[in-house]
Amino acid sequence: MNAVFMDRAIALAKKAAELGEVPVGAVVVKNGKIIGEGYNLREKFSSPTAHAEIAAIEAAAKALGDWRLDGCSLYVTLEPCPMCAGAIINARIAEVVFGAYDKRAGSCSGDSVVDLFSCGYDHRPAVYGGIREEECLKILADFFKSLRD
Amino acid sequence: MNAVFMDRAIALAKKAAELGEVPVGAVVVKNGKIIGEGYNLREKFSSPTAHAEIAAIEAAAKALGDWRLDGCSLYVTLEPCPMCAGAIINARIAEVVFGAYDKRAGSCSGDSVVDLFSCGYDHRPAVYGGIREEECLKILADFFKSLRD
Repeated sequence: MNAVFMDRAIALAKKAAELGEVPVGAVVVKNGKIIGEGYNLREKFSSPTAHAEIAAIEAAAKALGDWRLDGCSLYVTLEPCPMCAGAIINARIAEVVFGAYDKRAGSCSGDSVVDLFSCGYDHRPAVYGGIREEECLKILADFFKSLRD
Repeated sequence: MNAVFMDRAIALAKKAAELGEVPVGAVVVKNGKIIGEGYNLREKFSSPTAHAEIAAIEAAAKALGDWRLDGCSLYVTLEPCPMCAGAIINARIAEVVFGAYDKRAGSCSGDSVVDLFSCGYDHRPAVYGGIREEECLKILADFFKSLRD
């Protein structure tokens, strides 16, 4: 875990906000290098799967030419939802680092809806939650405030 | 629920098998019409997200021009994994009909790994499991037997 990669995830989340998308950004890292990145584009693509993590995972798999992201870490500004946590399991990502907890849809922590990483699937990544939490929360809070104003 | 739509999901699973992919097929139905379909192409695309349900959901969202698949049903030959069950929740699909249960990765039944549809997410689809179960199981069993032979 190297929290510096959260810088890029945060920058990607801000890009999403500029486009009017719920601001979440993610990167996939292997051997100290970013090999895939993405941000939420659900509204732009009218797609329920266009989350930051899915984009970053698909880009990383393309870069490696392999659906197995063994030895990779995923950094994301918000706790993954069940779809993204499931994609992390399917891709066998070794490590997940997330910023803000998500009580409504978060699926990687016993304090959120469910912890999919301790349910008994074949693969179980290491998880670090609440990393750069305040910055990640502020991006979301600012975005939702701007929608209300 | 209309089990006839499982015919098309089964046909799509067989297409996957012909391509050497784990045979799973899926369709999304709205108002009695198939609006999206897909089959597993994980190996072809080297992508951990290229499951049948994701392809069918993305095609349906594209057809409707909306990430919200309200009032839609998803028919799939195998119990959805956590990624696909999460995509079903995110897309607000009303109803899920699946064929074979999946003890290893299934995420829509208390008898499998976890039932994501009764965990407390904002959306909870109706679920019918074990529909055309024998046919769906046989496609998978034949595929894995052919790999071993």
